[in-house]
Amino acid sequence: MTSRCGSEYKSKFSSILAQGGSQVVGETLIRFLDKVCEHVQNIKSNLDFKKIEEFISALENARCIFVMGAGRSGFVAKAFAMRLMHLGYNVYVVGETVTPRIKPEDLLIAISGSGETLSVVNISRRAKEDIGSKLVAITQRPESTLAKMSDIVIVLKGKDKYERNHELSKLAPLGTLFELTALIFLDGLVAEIMNLKQLTEEDLAERHAVLE
Amino acid sequence: MTSRCGSEYKSKFSSILAQGGSQVVGETLIRFLDKVCEHVQNIKSNLDFKKIEEFISALENARCIFVMGAGRSGFVAKAFAMRLMHLGYNVYVVGETVTPRIKPEDLLIAISGSGETLSVVNISRRAKEDIGSKLVAITQRPESTLAKMSDIVIVLKGKDKYERNHELSKLAPLGTLFELTALIFLDGLVAEIMNLKQLTEEDLAERHAVLE
Amino acid sequence: MTSRCGSEYKSKFSSILAQGGSQVVGETLIRFLDKVCEHVQNIKSNLDFKKIEEFISALENARCIFVMGAGRSGFVAKAFAMRLMHLGYNVYVVGETVTPRIKPEDLLIAISGSGETLSVVNISRRAKEDIGSKLVAITQRPESTLAKMSDIVIVLKGKDKYERNHELSKLAPLGTLFELTALIFLDGLVAEIMNLKQLTEEDLAERHAVLE
Amino acid sequence: MTSRCGSEYKSKFSSILAQGGSQVVGETLIRFLDKVCEHVQNIKSNLDFKKIEEFISALENARCIFVMGAGRSGFVAKAFAMRLMHLGYNVYVVGETVTPRIKPEDLLIAISGSGETLSVVNISRRAKEDIGSKLVAITQRPESTLAKMSDIVIVLKGKDKYERNHELSKLAPLGTLFELTALIFLDGLVAEIMNLKQLTEEDLAERHAVLE
Repeated sequence: MTSRCGSEYKSKFSSILAQGGSQVVGETLIRFLDKVCEHVQNIKSNLDFKKIEEFISALENARCIFVMGAGRSGFVAKAFAMRLMHLGYNVYVVGETVTPRIKPEDLLIAISGSGETLSVVNISRRAKEDIGSKLVAITQRPESTLAKMSDIVIVLKGKDKYERNHELSKLAPLGTLFELTALIFLDGLVAEIMNLKQLTEEDLAERHAVLE
Repeated sequence: MTSRCGSEYKSKFSSILAQGGSQVVGETLIRFLDKVCEHVQNIKSNLDFKKIEEFISALENARCIFVMGAGRSGFVAKAFAMRLMHLGYNVYVVGETVTPRIKPEDLLIAISGSGETLSVVNISRRAKEDIGSKLVAITQRPESTLAKMSDIVIVLKGKDKYERNHELSKLAPLGTLFELTALIFLDGLVAEIMNLKQLTEEDLAERHAVLE
Repeated sequence: MTSRCGSEYKSKFSSILAQGGSQVVGETLIRFLDKVCEHVQNIKSNLDFKKIEEFISALENARCIFVMGAGRSGFVAKAFAMRLMHLGYNVYVVGETVTPRIKPEDLLIAISGSGETLSVVNISRRAKEDIGSKLVAITQRPESTLAKMSDIVIVLKGKDKYERNHELSKLAPLGTLFELTALIFLDGLVAEIMNLKQLTEEDLAERHAVLE
Repeated sequence: MTSRCGSEYKSKFSSILAQGGSQVVGETLIRFLDKVCEHVQNIKSNLDFKKIEEFISALENARCIFVMGAGRSGFVAKAFAMRLMHLGYNVYVVGETVTPRIKPEDLLIAISGSGETLSVVNISRRAKEDIGSKLVAITQRPESTLAKMSDIVIVLKGKDKYERNHELSKLAPLGTLFELTALIFLDGLVAEIMNLKQLTEEDLAERHAVLE
């Protein structure tokens, strides 16, 4: 029987801290921050404005918008959904309490770095094939199962979850880079929509929950 | 009775798109991405390595770690909690199903840009004053109620939620900059801890949920 | 360092099972089921039809309905919210992603057995006093802080969470009886509303989420 | 564009209330409460003590316990998971933040009235077939896909979600009866385990979250 408490590392870690001093702690963090900036610049150079315009049109033309993602991509989906609500859209998160039945005139936004996450692929297929809803994929893999069945694919290059780049994997393990770039990109899209619709921060604040 | 559907904007928006063409759509998004990078560089210059070391020691010395946040800061808290679990810590999210009673030897990490969010402040006070747990605040306001009662305060400068900087508020409304920088900083901390403990991506992947 | 795994009980438990045989396992369960029925009969005898009518009118007259509860009462709140959505109401759960700002013309339903749960009381006070929304309490304590500030109080007698009735506490620990009777009562209210509005199961099924 | 607000019914409903008086409001609710008691008596007569003993043994012998359900069955799963934590088990909810990778020596409890819910069936299959974990189904359909692949099947007869019993469907629409009987049964199982292990309410209270 193993314990969930992390104390097995304690003695080793304490001695590292004791040796290292403050110039050691933080070096990796700094390299990480530089890597994130580098990636944000990467997204910037690879923006496909035609696709972004299509994405915004799909948001505008949907009766309701549904968002979904698993794990940390799910938190990105929820953070984006909250802003869509602040912007005045009729938006729901798949799996939350008050989410109603999706209809053909609705839009599903599926966020998955690999584009192969079991639940995301299965639910997207149901929305697309059984219901006939429009499907937008936010992914880093244009060749993934999710991307292939989507009407609009927004490709955000991060490190691939299944790829093992030794150097990068020590800085940004698993889906970290995709999740960060997805959240940053989607927050940029919010700014874009605010500008197009001439919405102000006050318009958003007016819809922001106060019971929290 | 108002509807939640965003269609009131539709005609105006369509005509903007029609006039603008693709060079207009994306300009704000690009300015947003630059602003995020600028902010990440800002965090970098203002890192307090002593505080970061104290924070890592607090993580190591806690019996259990509890994290909390409201709204989008809550999603940041959950994204960090998931990585802490991947790193091998015994971690819980305040308000989730299996979260047990907090004890004096536990650590509570509270994430709040303003440091004044009602539920976050009240629950932090209960943990700190009634239980005697250690409290870490992640906030942009060192003078906030939350920061003042905390053992360790990590200050991340974003735009203040209550401040109305006209230019910035149109790019990054409400808590956007704080939430992004908090997530990026905490993911950098994960990289730092991986390095200190010599953990690899495979160690983290080994604990990653497969039922999703 | 203690483990979260329950194996300390294993040997003792195995020997109990070995001695007891199947006639022993199940006896407590049967007494529990009888106790629940007894309690449901209790609710039935104590129904205040005037209050129920007021509650239904409040649901009908609200612009939006917000529900909240902590812990297992929170799950009861969500289960009720889902049915309110199926019935066609505009309903939100406090703390979920797409929940907007509450307004004076909205209704907040707060579920708390003790009527003293920190977050529930604080948030109810904010809705009632700062916003001016209508407040309905579902509680077992008419004299609680929550009940005292509410416009409508639905009292459901269970065992009190803080009361230590030796016999009952072994069958239905903590808030168990309140949570069960609250869920049963609220599902009965759903039946009542279906009848009043002549809604059928098909009407509800039509709104039921299919992406799950 | 339709609104989510329920006001279309308002005038008709007000006139029904005006005509009816308080003796009308409540009649359906009373019939519902009687129906629930009848069903609880039904469960009682059909308890399979052998299966219950097997279920408790599976809980005891698991390294970790995972629970899952969709929609209202998901809230039942969470309410049960919280009590399992209070009882001292190492338990997780599929899809929550800190839930780790499931292992062959773990137990997955899947709650689905129909036994055909897409995500529940797919995830159960992955746990059973790919990982080799033990699987317990709580369902009303012993012939369902979920039941057929499970190691232990607890059958709780409610009204079938897909069956259209005219009388019953007006009292207890969709999965209502299954969800209620599942929650009641599982709370009875908690009482049974408390008795077998000689745990008191105080033992449970000791683990109950205080930050809520």
